[in-house]
Amino acid sequence: MPEAVKSAFDDELLDVLCQIVGDRVTTAAAIREQHGKDESFHACAPPDAVVFAQTTDEVSRIVMACAARDVPVIPFGTGTSLEGHVAALHGGVSIDVSQMNEILAVNAEDLTCQVQPGVRRKQLNEHLRDTGLFFPIDPGADASLGGMTATRASGTNAVRYGTMRENVMSLEVVMADGRIIRTARRSKKSSAGYDLSRLFVGSEGTLGVITEVTLKLFGIPEAISAAVCSFGDMESAVNTVILTIQSGIPIARIELLDAVQMDACNKYSDLNYPVAPTLFFEFHGTENSVAEQVKQVQNIAGELGGTDFSWARKAEDRSKLWQARHDAYYAALALRPGCKGIATDVCVPISRLAECILETQVDIRDSGLIAPIVGHVGDGNFHLVLCVDPDDADEMVRAEDLNERMVMRALAMDGTCTGEHGVGYGKIGFLEAEHGEALSVMRDLKHALDPKNIMNPGKILKV
Amino acid sequence: MPEAVKSAFDDELLDVLCQIVGDRVTTAAAIREQHGKDESFHACAPPDAVVFAQTTDEVSRIVMACAARDVPVIPFGTGTSLEGHVAALHGGVSIDVSQMNEILAVNAEDLTCQVQPGVRRKQLNEHLRDTGLFFPIDPGADASLGGMTATRASGTNAVRYGTMRENVMSLEVVMADGRIIRTARRSKKSSAGYDLSRLFVGSEGTLGVITEVTLKLFGIPEAISAAVCSFGDMESAVNTVILTIQSGIPIARIELLDAVQMDACNKYSDLNYPVAPTLFFEFHGTENSVAEQVKQVQNIAGELGGTDFSWARKAEDRSKLWQARHDAYYAALALRPGCKGIATDVCVPISRLAECILETQVDIRDSGLIAPIVGHVGDGNFHLVLCVDPDDADEMVRAEDLNERMVMRALAMDGTCTGEHGVGYGKIGFLEAEHGEALSVMRDLKHALDPKNIMNPGKILKV
Repeated sequence: MPEAVKSAFDDELLDVLCQIVGDRVTTAAAIREQHGKDESFHACAPPDAVVFAQTTDEVSRIVMACAARDVPVIPFGTGTSLEGHVAALHGGVSIDVSQMNEILAVNAEDLTCQVQPGVRRKQLNEHLRDTGLFFPIDPGADASLGGMTATRASGTNAVRYGTMRENVMSLEVVMADGRIIRTARRSKKSSAGYDLSRLFVGSEGTLGVITEVTLKLFGIPEAISAAVCSFGDMESAVNTVILTIQSGIPIARIELLDAVQMDACNKYSDLNYPVAPTLFFEFHGTENSVAEQVKQVQNIAGELGGTDFSWARKAEDRSKLWQARHDAYYAALALRPGCKGIATDVCVPISRLAECILETQVDIRDSGLIAPIVGHVGDGNFHLVLCVDPDDADEMVRAEDLNERMVMRALAMDGTCTGEHGVGYGKIGFLEAEHGEALSVMRDLKHALDPKNIMNPGKILKV
Repeated sequence: MPEAVKSAFDDELLDVLCQIVGDRVTTAAAIREQHGKDESFHACAPPDAVVFAQTTDEVSRIVMACAARDVPVIPFGTGTSLEGHVAALHGGVSIDVSQMNEILAVNAEDLTCQVQPGVRRKQLNEHLRDTGLFFPIDPGADASLGGMTATRASGTNAVRYGTMRENVMSLEVVMADGRIIRTARRSKKSSAGYDLSRLFVGSEGTLGVITEVTLKLFGIPEAISAAVCSFGDMESAVNTVILTIQSGIPIARIELLDAVQMDACNKYSDLNYPVAPTLFFEFHGTENSVAEQVKQVQNIAGELGGTDFSWARKAEDRSKLWQARHDAYYAALALRPGCKGIATDVCVPISRLAECILETQVDIRDSGLIAPIVGHVGDGNFHLVLCVDPDDADEMVRAEDLNERMVMRALAMDGTCTGEHGVGYGKIGFLEAEHGEALSVMRDLKHALDPKNIMNPGKILKV
């Protein structure tokens, strides 16, 4: 595969782009800067130009124009990724799809909807509210559904409802040569050929530009209840999670916060929870089913020493509780005013989770860093928020070491370097260790679908 | 891509295969015939030789020996596929993995297991029984898990537990050049690169040979209940299914049989159900949850005119009920002694299901054929069993016409030509109509991973 070289973007291409989208193309420095950086600490790499596309046909023509000149193409949704996914490492054209934000269809009988890639998750749920349906995937940010598809995002509801992998039914994609394809039909199942939908879920713009997404929807549950419970130690909390899932309890959310994070949340959100390993639960179902789930989980937690069960049955109490969980990142940063956060993202088989977290806590202590832990523990996925001063080179080295040790520990436990954030260019160095020979197959696929290496070059795979 | 030519199998290759597997290679006609045909009506195409592999390393060496001579490789599990998947259309070597039938690990805490590809689904569930876990995917046949992975199989439990797409966590695969890869780690989630597992699920041996499968498991439910209910017409039965699923009732099985099929089952299994569109239900959960699900579904069915609810709470009654369902195929054939069955397999969005079935019933009447209907209706998937005399050319033409009209109807309704059987060579002609331009992307993938077109050539894609 050709190494991506510095973009051959020039005035002639700019003219062509103007012919395609009129005044919706810009080379203004501020807009380019904004499109070269996501929410992470990774360095900004601005594209040569930003195009605000409004139709699939425009996207196809833009890609063809870039392909003809070997100019890189970087799809852009909301820029809320966490591993430098949108950085234009080799220059090129950022295709911003935020104006492709129409909800095209809601099929209530089939529990599906079709959206343009710039639709954000909150916008979709707002739109769905009157139908009694919702879309459950909730990464921290109010991300675009195209971007969530591209990074195989998940969040707190994944333990029950799955990730983008399970919830994308079909995609429309513009390929690296401008071909427009639909990856699948709208039936729930199919055995008709290769699973192209899943190939593009998690491909981070390196194989094509997603221009439409068909998603699964779910009925808003009749009853919802939430609770918080503290534990004497990490193993008891994790064992509660394991037993809950083994028992087949259809828990909707089960989130872990360690003592450091609970302390941060108490301070940030003016709460008064014990400073101890803590689980946040949410139960969805009928009134009876929720009552039964609650009883089962309370029994399991009780036997493992869980104490101080605090319930939130009313919507406003639940929302206060989950607000504290969603604010965990900001609460962590507030532990050290002025610091920046680096979010790590390993995921391991749940049987290894307690061990992985405990060894990581020892590492944190040894590193001298502040790094609270939050986790989607039902999936074996947890994050540290490393609270760092990016200008302190020594500290950044310690942070990198800590992250690398944690990734290698997760891999040794048959886990992954990223549970939900994706690779971007931040995690690219770990993929060899994670996939070994399989990485050569990924490279074969990339080469087949993007022979010129113009699609978001420098992400997922080193060429 | 090179057109697959007649196999260059010769005595020299036979010698090489003997060096790899000793006496576990044969060119005996009876064995070759058996490996060139599956359970369908599709013609037999025997391979030049059959090798009984016992290790991944052997598979890799066999594939390399074949690749060096441009000789096709056809993976073989149990031969229970339905679209000619195992036929050696261009000759070559059938790699029979039925002796790779070890259950390598069961991780009860993680709800996962690792098996060799020749392990059969009933063997796995027998092995799991004492652990309180089970593997839910149940195609009609007692298929191998490698084969089920390769065809993206499902069955009656898919409405609740998903298909092989959702239940494969990771695979070991031997590529067309002998490379051995592992497609993913054993964590529940990952965003680390392209989803190779999903690429091989449903690839029907055309991209590589599956040599190990890591699967999700589930806890055996505390309570199970089953029921049968008749309806005055097809729409009411299908609307019962739609409302059940929309209500979020976690139904485990919901199967439809039309009046012709019920008549056949009554005669074959000596039963006395009304000869009318009928739903078979199964409910999994705690005692309370099952009781609640039953009440909800009974209300929905009652409002839509469902009558004669017949319950089976005891294991032996349930097993009698489901035996009748599982014998539906043989019951259909018994309607016309001496006939052969052709099983069709379309799947549509559930909102279009009633319409699709009703139009198909008109077609069946016009065709003069006997063709009972059974369906995994929670997924929008149904089968006709066309009861035909293969020696009656006119009848075979009418059967083909009927199938083609049904496929085109399903495609017009945004459905698929195959919900769970796969493409093989029987459905290969429909993929252009189903996928359009996306088929060229599938061809790009095939070309990238199997440039010599030696992996099960002539299946899924025409070259």
